[in-house]
Amino acid sequence: MSSPNQPVPFTADDYRARMTRAAESAAEAGLAGVLVAPGPDLVHLTGYRPVNTERLTVLVLTPGQDPVLVVPTLEAPDAEKAVGAPALTLRDWTDGKDPYTVTASLLDGRGRFAVSDNAWAMHLLGLQRTLPDTSYVSLTEALPMLRAVKDAAELERLAAAGAAADATYGEILKVRFAGRKETDIAADLADLLKRFGHSQVDFTVVGSGPNGANPHHEAGDRTIEQGDMVVLDFGGLKHGYGSDTSRTVHVGEPTAEEQRVHDIVREAQEAGCNAVRPGVACQEIDRAARAVITEFGYGERFIHRTGHGIGVTTHEPPYMIEGEEQPLVPGMCFSVEPGIYLPGRFGVRIEDIVTVTEDGGRRLNSTARELAIVE
Amino acid sequence: MSSPNQPVPFTADDYRARMTRAAESAAEAGLAGVLVAPGPDLVHLTGYRPVNTERLTVLVLTPGQDPVLVVPTLEAPDAEKAVGAPALTLRDWTDGKDPYTVTASLLDGRGRFAVSDNAWAMHLLGLQRTLPDTSYVSLTEALPMLRAVKDAAELERLAAAGAAADATYGEILKVRFAGRKETDIAADLADLLKRFGHSQVDFTVVGSGPNGANPHHEAGDRTIEQGDMVVLDFGGLKHGYGSDTSRTVHVGEPTAEEQRVHDIVREAQEAGCNAVRPGVACQEIDRAARAVITEFGYGERFIHRTGHGIGVTTHEPPYMIEGEEQPLVPGMCFSVEPGIYLPGRFGVRIEDIVTVTEDGGRRLNSTARELAIVE
Repeated sequence: MSSPNQPVPFTADDYRARMTRAAESAAEAGLAGVLVAPGPDLVHLTGYRPVNTERLTVLVLTPGQDPVLVVPTLEAPDAEKAVGAPALTLRDWTDGKDPYTVTASLLDGRGRFAVSDNAWAMHLLGLQRTLPDTSYVSLTEALPMLRAVKDAAELERLAAAGAAADATYGEILKVRFAGRKETDIAADLADLLKRFGHSQVDFTVVGSGPNGANPHHEAGDRTIEQGDMVVLDFGGLKHGYGSDTSRTVHVGEPTAEEQRVHDIVREAQEAGCNAVRPGVACQEIDRAARAVITEFGYGERFIHRTGHGIGVTTHEPPYMIEGEEQPLVPGMCFSVEPGIYLPGRFGVRIEDIVTVTEDGGRRLNSTARELAIVE
Repeated sequence: MSSPNQPVPFTADDYRARMTRAAESAAEAGLAGVLVAPGPDLVHLTGYRPVNTERLTVLVLTPGQDPVLVVPTLEAPDAEKAVGAPALTLRDWTDGKDPYTVTASLLDGRGRFAVSDNAWAMHLLGLQRTLPDTSYVSLTEALPMLRAVKDAAELERLAAAGAAADATYGEILKVRFAGRKETDIAADLADLLKRFGHSQVDFTVVGSGPNGANPHHEAGDRTIEQGDMVVLDFGGLKHGYGSDTSRTVHVGEPTAEEQRVHDIVREAQEAGCNAVRPGVACQEIDRAARAVITEFGYGERFIHRTGHGIGVTTHEPPYMIEGEEQPLVPGMCFSVEPGIYLPGRFGVRIEDIVTVTEDGGRRLNSTARELAIVE
């Protein structure tokens, strides 16, 4: 075992396996290939992290052929240094040449291709113009589960990110809440996430009192008061993989109603986590959590889906939402985060990242889920 | 006059005028409209700076109609706060609804539309599927000069950014070069840019000795030595507008050859700047600078275009390059940055931002262009 500070490095073989799986998935879906743009898809498949710009960089995955990375000549030296580079062929193009012609030469001119959601429109237009008989579909629509199943090295990183988020929560319980602004607590959370090894902070929600009733509130100028419920929801990237956890705390002693609402959310979150096992449809996780909240009469106050996937980004497929029939597969990682939101009053949300194991689920967050009292 | 630290705020009228001009340009180009994605185009046209995500945000500009900004409901409160919001109508869509249907209802179903280069492919695919008889072209291809002509308030910001870059150069001349790594000087440059008001540092090139001969070198581990030429090229954003300047310095006394090469580049840069006036084609700026370098026998060693536009980004149209016949218009701003690169030995580049005036050009950088001696 490596320490949490030194994850096992990904190898070219890891990336080769991911690219092979992607090409196989594309073939199964009747696609002629996958066109991968700079961003999370390319990071996941090759380890290469260029900026997405007007200069075309695209990984071409076609079933039965070796992967080819089309790159601007100026950036080829960087691309060669990517860990996944030995598992692919570089094809560079120089300024002044047409990169779409270069890419088109690698493609079936009548095929249907999945293209990264965040590929630039100008690049898609360039390919459509060069190969008018091809057709395209967004990668998330065509192969939503492409990055969903994590391998052992990815799971190790997600666990380390979760442990860092848990350490952050442990420390935030010690700070003073009453009399300080939400943005002050948010800044504390960001500092702590970085102290515990995050390279990037994606969100630091601090929803105090009535602000907690808006699940999309981040952190504002409101001064936190004695008697407030405070929803905390924070995460980011550590070693390139995401954390995301929520706990709801109370400044001083809660009322009986506040405690009861918190207990219901805690029971719902427990039910959602307990429903996780291979073969179960994503929507069943949502249903399991929602059933508890509905049973206690707060169904109308749980106004969002129960969870989302996490990996090289903090929000990605699979989604734990009614209508998502994708069966869970060992290695999938996602949040389970039911909540109750009472407009004008307060909100409660409890969230852990859960990974699907061979016979159930395992949480990657393990801080206490009881309603914590802060000062 | 406002101080450089307090630029005149843009108003809703500024944004209204820009959106009107864009719609008029679209009509002149035979387009049914312009679809603007989050990023520099949207910042320029509305002042609104959302993150570009899988949730569709798009500004719809159609000739003769009021601008409409399609936004996710969750983000509508932020959009309403944008300075340009009073000049447009918001049309929000909620999670679970189809944002492409909402957008399509605003469009001519048979028209041709320009779309921001960096719009997400998934959004373009969504529109193409919803309106199969529409066609699309990238904004830079259809209307390359959309952001090229700056108004007075923009020019004020570009001048302030240029002054901050100049102040940075003044300070870097005082630091020690010999015995320090390129990355150390690069870090100094970044600190100085921020000290002088930059919110974002885009590049800090430090090309010492042979590294200076690669115009795409950034800054590396090489330790700078006595006798090195060092290319410095740095910039970023201040108050939302770009700076970009280059000077080449020498550690200790230069050789006669080094001095001569520097003199040639300086004369070429002067010739490029002097060629700037309304009506002259962009390529003439490139030709004017290149002619000097060619005359002295180094034509093969000037291996890039002479300049690029600058505004809410540090690289944008217009490009000063052979083949670009766009005539210069008062208010355009771009770099003039010829160079000579001697492989394995050293490089020289000198760069100022120049704006086109009614009767010529005006530089936004004014530090000395003589070869400065550093320690």
